[in-house]
Amino acid sequence: MTLIENIKNANSLIIGTSQGIGLCFVKKLLQDERISKVYATYRNPSNAEELLSLTDEYPDKLTCLMMDITEESEIIASVQRISTEVSKLHLVINCVGLLHDENLQPEKSLKQINTENLLRYFQINSIGAVLLAKHLLPLFKHKEPSVFATISAKVGSIGDNQLGGWYGYRASKAALNMLMRNVAIEYGRSCPQTIVVTLHPGTTDTRLSRPFQRNVPPEKLFSVERTVSQLLTVIEQLQAGDSGQFFSWDGSKLPW
Amino acid sequence: MTLIENIKNANSLIIGTSQGIGLCFVKKLLQDERISKVYATYRNPSNAEELLSLTDEYPDKLTCLMMDITEESEIIASVQRISTEVSKLHLVINCVGLLHDENLQPEKSLKQINTENLLRYFQINSIGAVLLAKHLLPLFKHKEPSVFATISAKVGSIGDNQLGGWYGYRASKAALNMLMRNVAIEYGRSCPQTIVVTLHPGTTDTRLSRPFQRNVPPEKLFSVERTVSQLLTVIEQLQAGDSGQFFSWDGSKLPW
Repeated sequence: MTLIENIKNANSLIIGTSQGIGLCFVKKLLQDERISKVYATYRNPSNAEELLSLTDEYPDKLTCLMMDITEESEIIASVQRISTEVSKLHLVINCVGLLHDENLQPEKSLKQINTENLLRYFQINSIGAVLLAKHLLPLFKHKEPSVFATISAKVGSIGDNQLGGWYGYRASKAALNMLMRNVAIEYGRSCPQTIVVTLHPGTTDTRLSRPFQRNVPPEKLFSVERTVSQLLTVIEQLQAGDSGQFFSWDGSKLPW
Repeated sequence: MTLIENIKNANSLIIGTSQGIGLCFVKKLLQDERISKVYATYRNPSNAEELLSLTDEYPDKLTCLMMDITEESEIIASVQRISTEVSKLHLVINCVGLLHDENLQPEKSLKQINTENLLRYFQINSIGAVLLAKHLLPLFKHKEPSVFATISAKVGSIGDNQLGGWYGYRASKAALNMLMRNVAIEYGRSCPQTIVVTLHPGTTDTRLSRPFQRNVPPEKLFSVERTVSQLLTVIEQLQAGDSGQFFSWDGSKLPW
């Protein structure tokens, strides 16, 4: 029994949709007739032109919301806005993640360790997801099968870590995995029909991975479209007992 | 082959020694003739009276250093001070950890999630240890067997987490486990005779666990002396291949 197929008129929320994996999820769900509403958040309108232009084509189905995942007040405002229109969410996918930007590069060694950078990784990659979980809980309190998925990363697996480096990114994803496992346990008590998982997308040709693609063999570098199709397949095949687990793009479970 | 027995005139550094497990490590090592120097850090002199009084009895062996693990400049100053006296460290144990204080209680549920509190958990429980690792590396660049241990906690095991709650503490310890695994990998290249591990002390009768001891059966609530003896036994029995692992007080490996 798959999840989304079980639902008609499903409402979805995708977080972090200016580009990359998040934007592609929005496009796929807009084309999916099982989904009646797509809420899509973005942080900066100047980077979200393609997303915002989709509202012309899907004026009733798509609602774009400006929201910074590090600002709890903005999460509250977005959830309030969604709650005026729908009383239930069935599919939430958090695609926000930071690996590098103009001020931040992943640490190759201890010499590059810096408290402010580490805190920033935790704030964006770990804390954002649990703030979402806090405020989305009322919208999952219904009886229909639902999924709350967050994009994590295999480099956030402690047991799988053989290479080292990328201290802040790795630690923030390990923390994310713990927080979402906690969320799975708490949701299991409050809204047990919601499956909470973390997902490893594989290395995907996005801005996030671009500076680090050199040593990735071509067959392991996925297009955004391929990654999103694969992750939707994983999501559709989730079973009740899968809540609190960490899945790879091929549906296999990853070690913590 | 045990580690510390292999060394004569070993130099040690214990971080977070005002009270509890850290203070007891200091007392044990002061009585241990294999150890020639004990550096002991504390954050607040008004809480460190017993520690500071030990310098009367061991004026040559014990050096107390005031240091806040969240201030990199203070870590640098302490390492500089140590480096004027010794060129090698053989045993470093980081005992700093935050579970609760006057401003902070571990979260029972998502409702209590708060960004500032989560960041504080990460700063004290996760980032402090990797800042230590960054600045202590030169003192481990020698040929003698050495250990760099950090107190973690079994509730920081993602795979072992069945109960949920304590979001910030759990996530910060999972992040610590990842960071120290990374440190083990990097130290393995720079100073391969140093074994880097995280340790679960078991529930110990300290200020940290006191509000949460009610449901702990008496035989599972250890005295500080018992915990420190058990952890020193684990440390003494570490083998080269153990670097990067997470050990319980009884020497068993814990899951991530």
